[in-house]
Amino acid sequence: MQMNDWYPSRVDHQPRILKRKDPVLHGDEQSRNKGPFTPEQLDFFDKNGFLLLENFFSAEEVEGMKKDLDRLWKENRFNDSPEIIREPDSEAIRSIFDAHRKNERFNRLVRDSRITDRIAQLLGSDVYVHQFRINYKPGFTGKEFQWHSDFETWHVEDGMPRMRAVSCSILLTDNHSYNGPLMLIPGSHRHFVSCIGETPDNHFKHSLRKQEVGVPDPDSLTWLYKRGGIYTATGSAGSLLLFECNTMHGSAGNISPLPRSNVFFVFNSVENALEKPFSGQSPRPDFPGQPHAANPRAGQDKLIRTKV
Amino acid sequence: MQMNDWYPSRVDHQPRILKRKDPVLHGDEQSRNKGPFTPEQLDFFDKNGFLLLENFFSAEEVEGMKKDLDRLWKENRFNDSPEIIREPDSEAIRSIFDAHRKNERFNRLVRDSRITDRIAQLLGSDVYVHQFRINYKPGFTGKEFQWHSDFETWHVEDGMPRMRAVSCSILLTDNHSYNGPLMLIPGSHRHFVSCIGETPDNHFKHSLRKQEVGVPDPDSLTWLYKRGGIYTATGSAGSLLLFECNTMHGSAGNISPLPRSNVFFVFNSVENALEKPFSGQSPRPDFPGQPHAANPRAGQDKLIRTKV
Repeated sequence: MQMNDWYPSRVDHQPRILKRKDPVLHGDEQSRNKGPFTPEQLDFFDKNGFLLLENFFSAEEVEGMKKDLDRLWKENRFNDSPEIIREPDSEAIRSIFDAHRKNERFNRLVRDSRITDRIAQLLGSDVYVHQFRINYKPGFTGKEFQWHSDFETWHVEDGMPRMRAVSCSILLTDNHSYNGPLMLIPGSHRHFVSCIGETPDNHFKHSLRKQEVGVPDPDSLTWLYKRGGIYTATGSAGSLLLFECNTMHGSAGNISPLPRSNVFFVFNSVENALEKPFSGQSPRPDFPGQPHAANPRAGQDKLIRTKV
Repeated sequence: MQMNDWYPSRVDHQPRILKRKDPVLHGDEQSRNKGPFTPEQLDFFDKNGFLLLENFFSAEEVEGMKKDLDRLWKENRFNDSPEIIREPDSEAIRSIFDAHRKNERFNRLVRDSRITDRIAQLLGSDVYVHQFRINYKPGFTGKEFQWHSDFETWHVEDGMPRMRAVSCSILLTDNHSYNGPLMLIPGSHRHFVSCIGETPDNHFKHSLRKQEVGVPDPDSLTWLYKRGGIYTATGSAGSLLLFECNTMHGSAGNISPLPRSNVFFVFNSVENALEKPFSGQSPRPDFPGQPHAANPRAGQDKLIRTKV
């Protein structure tokens, strides 16, 4: 454990619930109130830890992204690079990481000022992309994502010191209650669930298929659920869901015929630069948790920093 | 395959969709119109293959059933009888069969004229209990039930010749969109999906934990879904869901903290008595698919036959 570990996890035999020590809305209020989010939207995000923006992208934009998703799926069917994550029970592609570095459309996407202006407003600083992935969740066979706080993993495995990051999920298929939509626990971002267990070496190789360490305990989840309930993020293709890095979320499997694909990327504040992983282990490779200070590629993503 | 197999399944290498050869509402219209179901409810059931009756049971009745559910769970924790089915990945109880033969409350339940009168109205004859089970679907770990038509299994494995049975599911916990509620494909009861594959010996021992044979193919499911969509049976504890024996249904896993328990039982028409299983194999034992003509216990369930 490092000296300055504000959110210790996977170090104890007992789970614990710690109070969040960081604000949810960062920076000074005056510049935050300049928009683009309205004060009501900011309040909602502050209170609940997420915000769903329906019909954020046009039908044409959605079509374009879906075309590229299909193309990447086909191109990577037999690709055994570590950026290609497969379903736990089959060889179907579950996620593709890092597409924003290789695909022009997705590279443009993470620089889109409609998004970055809003993220910078929430985080009160310049921001950069910490992670980018496409999630396929195919019909019939897409498996569940267990409950987790993204921050818990990024903190322990990537060395993200504080809670000052926001995730974006673009719905590329209609998300119904029945095709495994994202579920979030409102208000859960205000508590940090310190998980039990130690992080195995190279944990990411397994955890991206099926998470087993860094999974909150049932009692803590029940405690959060009793306070906040569960919000099911249903919405039509083209909606944008923003959620705070510590908001507890997960999704059930998808047995419906309809896939539930999305593009998922995370912005971190440049004032929240990564340190050494709090697990004491080596940082994960570039694609699931970058750019890291020690990483030669880090420079690339500076390009997409944006001024508040 | 028997000579009079109206709905062949698991006999071919190609899946097929056959038209339903039986009516959905049985018996003569005049006596059917005497109630208790209204003509609108009958039409709805005829068209969609299910009917949800909200708040059918009082809060006291629900509490009583839940108490017995909890008791049976505790009593059977280490019971290795074949009526106790466990989750595919753990030893948590998934289902308990046959409780109506041992538990007074559930024995009364399957004779409750509020239910049997309605079932007899739909099936146009006296009826008897073909199967009774409690499904626990615990929070966090409850696994999915893959899409299936109950009739397909009862036909192939139990020898139920025709489509003239109705399933009852009593919701004992609130069924939200997020705790793995039953999902049904409206209108699917009008088509029979002939599945591929052969039934292994003693299939039930495995299939009740995790179904792998008698599972409809993705193309047929997509075809049904495109015609009917998916109805998610959410409702409060105490609701009664009736569905036609051939209605395609399934449910996703339950990662929420809230269990999704129900009591599930099936009435078959006495005019649809079981024959030899259409798989050509021995009938399943008593509890998942009875009473069978060849079975000494069959007499017991005659008691609950009811006159239209």
